[in-house]
Amino acid sequence: MSVLVVGSIALDDVATPSTQRKNLLGGSASYASVAASFFGDVRLVGIVGTDFPENHRSLFEKHNIDLTGLEVAEGKTFRWSGEYEANMNNRRTITVDLNVFEHFSPKLPQPCRDTPYVLLGNIAPELQIEVLDQMEEPCFVVADTMDLWIEIAQPKLLELLPRLNLLILNDSEAVQLSGEPNLLAAARWLRSRGPEFVAIKKGEHGCYLSSRDREFITPAYPLESVVDPTGAGDTFAGTLAGYLDTIGGGEISFDVLKTAVIESTVMASFTCEDFSLNGLTNLSKEDIQKRKDHLRALTSY
Amino acid sequence: MSVLVVGSIALDDVATPSTQRKNLLGGSASYASVAASFFGDVRLVGIVGTDFPENHRSLFEKHNIDLTGLEVAEGKTFRWSGEYEANMNNRRTITVDLNVFEHFSPKLPQPCRDTPYVLLGNIAPELQIEVLDQMEEPCFVVADTMDLWIEIAQPKLLELLPRLNLLILNDSEAVQLSGEPNLLAAARWLRSRGPEFVAIKKGEHGCYLSSRDREFITPAYPLESVVDPTGAGDTFAGTLAGYLDTIGGGEISFDVLKTAVIESTVMASFTCEDFSLNGLTNLSKEDIQKRKDHLRALTSY
Repeated sequence: MSVLVVGSIALDDVATPSTQRKNLLGGSASYASVAASFFGDVRLVGIVGTDFPENHRSLFEKHNIDLTGLEVAEGKTFRWSGEYEANMNNRRTITVDLNVFEHFSPKLPQPCRDTPYVLLGNIAPELQIEVLDQMEEPCFVVADTMDLWIEIAQPKLLELLPRLNLLILNDSEAVQLSGEPNLLAAARWLRSRGPEFVAIKKGEHGCYLSSRDREFITPAYPLESVVDPTGAGDTFAGTLAGYLDTIGGGEISFDVLKTAVIESTVMASFTCEDFSLNGLTNLSKEDIQKRKDHLRALTSY
Repeated sequence: MSVLVVGSIALDDVATPSTQRKNLLGGSASYASVAASFFGDVRLVGIVGTDFPENHRSLFEKHNIDLTGLEVAEGKTFRWSGEYEANMNNRRTITVDLNVFEHFSPKLPQPCRDTPYVLLGNIAPELQIEVLDQMEEPCFVVADTMDLWIEIAQPKLLELLPRLNLLILNDSEAVQLSGEPNLLAAARWLRSRGPEFVAIKKGEHGCYLSSRDREFITPAYPLESVVDPTGAGDTFAGTLAGYLDTIGGGEISFDVLKTAVIESTVMASFTCEDFSLNGLTNLSKEDIQKRKDHLRALTSY
């Protein structure tokens, strides 16, 4: 079985209070696909320009990510630059150059269309819908989103919701989209619009997972040093979708999703500890297990 | 055995976005002593004016709180008024009238002096030190504090730290006092100044408990409706100290404190659901147990 990951692939310039880095591999699909590759077989759907560096492509290949759905278009790759404040929580976008991404219209190669698990990474809800329209009844569809789409494409986002099994979004986005200041109420509102499950990410404070009759809360993995949190949310979503590929086609129950949320929490913590995908690329199964064991020890009583 | 609770006793005017209430029983020692009374024998040390309403005094008595250390001074009781923003997290103090509290100098009656467990509720660190100076080698000393004392009485607060077993404070206060923006580093800094244990309260995001070689994190008990969070931190501290009285004089280990933090988290949630101490006063053991069971179900995997 396998996981289809669609989203943006970008070249990022990131400034933190202590460091500036340029031309980093970024984008929701980059983080999500590499994170998912630790758990399942990943098919990546996205677009890059002819300037996309070969070493970034090799990174995907090293992680056995199927690039049949990766379109290379004449022009430049999507570029993003942003800056973090001293607390590393508040981020300011400085520039966005959509480039080839501006006219991206995902075309799924035939073998991608029957992928059982789908992660609609953070891109315009219109594109997320286009992808689903080309799929042949996937088993489980996960989507991530962001404040931008709530502001400029809310009708399309609401149109997407009934087609999702799990919606992932930030706490502030959950409040913004639902109009409910309370997270429990926001999750209920969101579920009433379609998805059976909602995962609300609270950044350094963890994640709240909600279904009709069950809830789960985990703190984030506590980090002493946050180098660059860019992509932590995408890593979370990618891990969650990738984890579904490990259960061998069984039912995606609330308990399965709880475990997936823990794996996602741990993987996102690695992303925060280095720039770009550097916190993920050299991870071993032992590194991940060690952090999972620590998180369990930290939270159990 | 028993717990000594010292702190402020106040009459509060509280405004929330939906409601205004006047002349409520408030103050750190009021919340803390009533919360602690669910777990241990409580001795209250504080001061009120001759205007202190009889029904408030009766409330303490109903909870079997020993009022030998409650001084009644000529004049008015300490008054505080404050206002919450729509998100119920940000609070603005409108007025503070210290009244009889201005010249409060705690005098511990002889029977109070050998109380084994001590909670120095949120009052000036100078007064917290005065109380400790009158104690005969307590087994375990807990202190709460607030941003005001970090701003205006930091030397006294630092002088207090080596005399504490456990310091409780908010995340922003931990950062402010230690100068460390990271909570793990802040907790380590605070422990290096004296207390073996530090509990950092993160409001709606829960609590982080730290010792030299162990850590524990719990989310807050998730509430759908927050009516008035005034006193939640005092309830937390009071419960924590009160819980120590239940272990029958045994060693206060990290595992004991983990359980105490869970009890405190649950009790604080009840305080948030009503004005003044109304969320606490009619609680049954079953109400508390039910919420503890729910919190465990919400967080275990």
